[in-house]
Amino acid sequence: MTFKITLMGGDGIGPEVVAQAVKVLDVLRTRHGLEVETQDALVGGAAYDAYGDPYPAQTQALARDCDAILFGAIGGPQYDDLPRDKRPESGLLAMRADLGLYANLRPAILFEELASASSLKPDIVAGLDILIVRELTGGIYFGKPRGIEERNGIKTGFNTLVYGEDEIRRIAKTAFEAAQRRNGRLCSVDKANVLDVSQLWRDTVNAMAADYPDVEVSHMYVDNASMQLVRDPKQFDVIVTGNLFGDILSDLAAMLTGSIGMLPSASLGEGGHGMYEPVHGSAPDIAGQDKANPLATILSLAMLLRHSLNRGDLAELVESAVAKVLAQGLRTGDIAAGGDVVGTAAMGDAVAAAI
Amino acid sequence: MTFKITLMGGDGIGPEVVAQAVKVLDVLRTRHGLEVETQDALVGGAAYDAYGDPYPAQTQALARDCDAILFGAIGGPQYDDLPRDKRPESGLLAMRADLGLYANLRPAILFEELASASSLKPDIVAGLDILIVRELTGGIYFGKPRGIEERNGIKTGFNTLVYGEDEIRRIAKTAFEAAQRRNGRLCSVDKANVLDVSQLWRDTVNAMAADYPDVEVSHMYVDNASMQLVRDPKQFDVIVTGNLFGDILSDLAAMLTGSIGMLPSASLGEGGHGMYEPVHGSAPDIAGQDKANPLATILSLAMLLRHSLNRGDLAELVESAVAKVLAQGLRTGDIAAGGDVVGTAAMGDAVAAAI
Ligand SMILES: CC(C)[C@H](C(=O)O)[C@@H](O)C(=O)O
Ligand SMILES: CC(C)[C@H](C(=O)O)[C@@H](O)C(=O)O
Repeated sequence: MTFKITLMGGDGIGPEVVAQAVKVLDVLRTRHGLEVETQDALVGGAAYDAYGDPYPAQTQALARDCDAILFGAIGGPQYDDLPRDKRPESGLLAMRADLGLYANLRPAILFEELASASSLKPDIVAGLDILIVRELTGGIYFGKPRGIEERNGIKTGFNTLVYGEDEIRRIAKTAFEAAQRRNGRLCSVDKANVLDVSQLWRDTVNAMAADYPDVEVSHMYVDNASMQLVRDPKQFDVIVTGNLFGDILSDLAAMLTGSIGMLPSASLGEGGHGMYEPVHGSAPDIAGQDKANPLATILSLAMLLRHSLNRGDLAELVESAVAKVLAQGLRTGDIAAGGDVVGTAAMGDAVAAAI
Repeated sequence: MTFKITLMGGDGIGPEVVAQAVKVLDVLRTRHGLEVETQDALVGGAAYDAYGDPYPAQTQALARDCDAILFGAIGGPQYDDLPRDKRPESGLLAMRADLGLYANLRPAILFEELASASSLKPDIVAGLDILIVRELTGGIYFGKPRGIEERNGIKTGFNTLVYGEDEIRRIAKTAFEAAQRRNGRLCSVDKANVLDVSQLWRDTVNAMAADYPDVEVSHMYVDNASMQLVRDPKQFDVIVTGNLFGDILSDLAAMLTGSIGMLPSASLGEGGHGMYEPVHGSAPDIAGQDKANPLATILSLAMLLRHSLNRGDLAELVESAVAKVLAQGLRTGDIAAGGDVVGTAAMGDAVAAAI
């Protein structure tokens, strides 16, 4: 059976970093017998430019008809003044909802060679390896009612935070299972001292704990979690939380490493379908200049191989190749710390050659 | 005219740290002519124990009938299983709402002598001085409808995020004016790429900017703000944001300093009425052991003198006295870094003597 991957470069540096991951994919195809074909689709600003819609029907069809999506990045200043539903971000949100990609896996891993890039002291972050499991298709991102209207003569904005027990169970299951494969510790983050939704979240996670006797469960308020991530991030193994808290905490955790140009992510639905993307954004200021770091996208391809194609063996090949080029001293500008710099394409070639 | 201050020690280490601030207040009264009287009120778990209510009518009366409140801390494990409306936190939330304390000022300042306590590299945090202005009586903390109910047979939790333009303008005004007194830079934090409420927030802040030509306004998404606080916190001067984002970011910012035992806060309503409290919590594990750091509460008293009693001169006396004892090398356990340790009471005496 031949796998099908949809490539969505998106905006800014997106297309050029995805192109490097494709080089790696080509090596897996030609030299490691991976049977895979690719198809291209537009998303975000690029899709708006072409079709007036950041997630058009053509893209939707290609996004559904594949085993996995490799995504670059979206957004750019030229789209900032569009109505919200035309903006690149809306395309991403629409795709997450459309494909039911409810589980966002965001590892925050410190690469030993890049330890000095962190703004934290070396002993605080050395060996850091956290996984944040963020719910991605619910919560306040999608809750209704929402809008802006006059209330008693005052312009008023409103959004709804809402989670059903089924949504909480589904994401908690992902997180419990991840903790089982890792170090067996799961911290659920909420604001149960204030929010009813968080109380239900906490109760639901607690009710599931008995089914995972090998996982040690703890709970933390989101304000405390943001402190603890700064104070002593290595106390965490897996963190599970809702859409908005996950947005904030996963970016915080990523920044602890100092090298967000290195961090991949996965957004998974039922049955292995998934979307894989680097954590960094579209960086329009350096787009098209052969300056972007393609390693986060290449590591996202590794996650794709592991989670959607069930080829953990090939994922490890890719991850070792990335480790190898780092050990060789190859650095793009964002992780160079004053040393020699290679371009996006050269970095892609080097990883492909190292496999 | 004699000022009236209501003292609310609360739970855990609260009463003992407030007692140290009272020593300082006594010196201001006896030696600096401050005309002030104090009255005590129970709040949080202590009030629940006495009256079955964390913000009982007696406390409400005393909280209203004064110029300012000095608050310790609330909460403890013995209250964790109470229904939400009986828990200590609910008392605090009820008081904020009752007194209309909509503006929470949370400075994050690094004390030079304690720089090594930070988990961040010295050059990243040296000289850090940020002010977070958090909206405190609105947003998702108080929005209705809220609750847990069955929907289509599924237990579902829901909360409402809501802000009116009037609430946004009021807190933004506080923040613009603070920026004018400081370094003239205001960063408004929201999630306008996803939330309607945030879009109204952003538009409202932008519409006000013309009235403050001396303030440079910027906007940042909350996920990016949490990254930027870790990457380069000194880029900020004043941050203004809603209740929930402010809860998360102000704790994050506090932890950047490494010494939350040092950080005060103010919660202000219309007309100078205010509640002042240390940022740290009730620390039940060390309560009653003469181990707590009273400096955050003493610095909260300084904020009280400045904002509610309009005695910035006395506030500076208190702040200098704190700086003096730090320079003398006096340290409670939380900031000792291996050196000699003094107790809570001795630290209070030292500050009182240094005035
Ligand atoms: C672009 C934005 C809508 C998105 C989000 O908030 O989910 C981004 O911050 C992310 O984390 O993928
Ligand atoms: C105790 C809790 C309700 C409170 C809050 O979330 O506002 C606390 O975290 C704070 O920041 O004062």
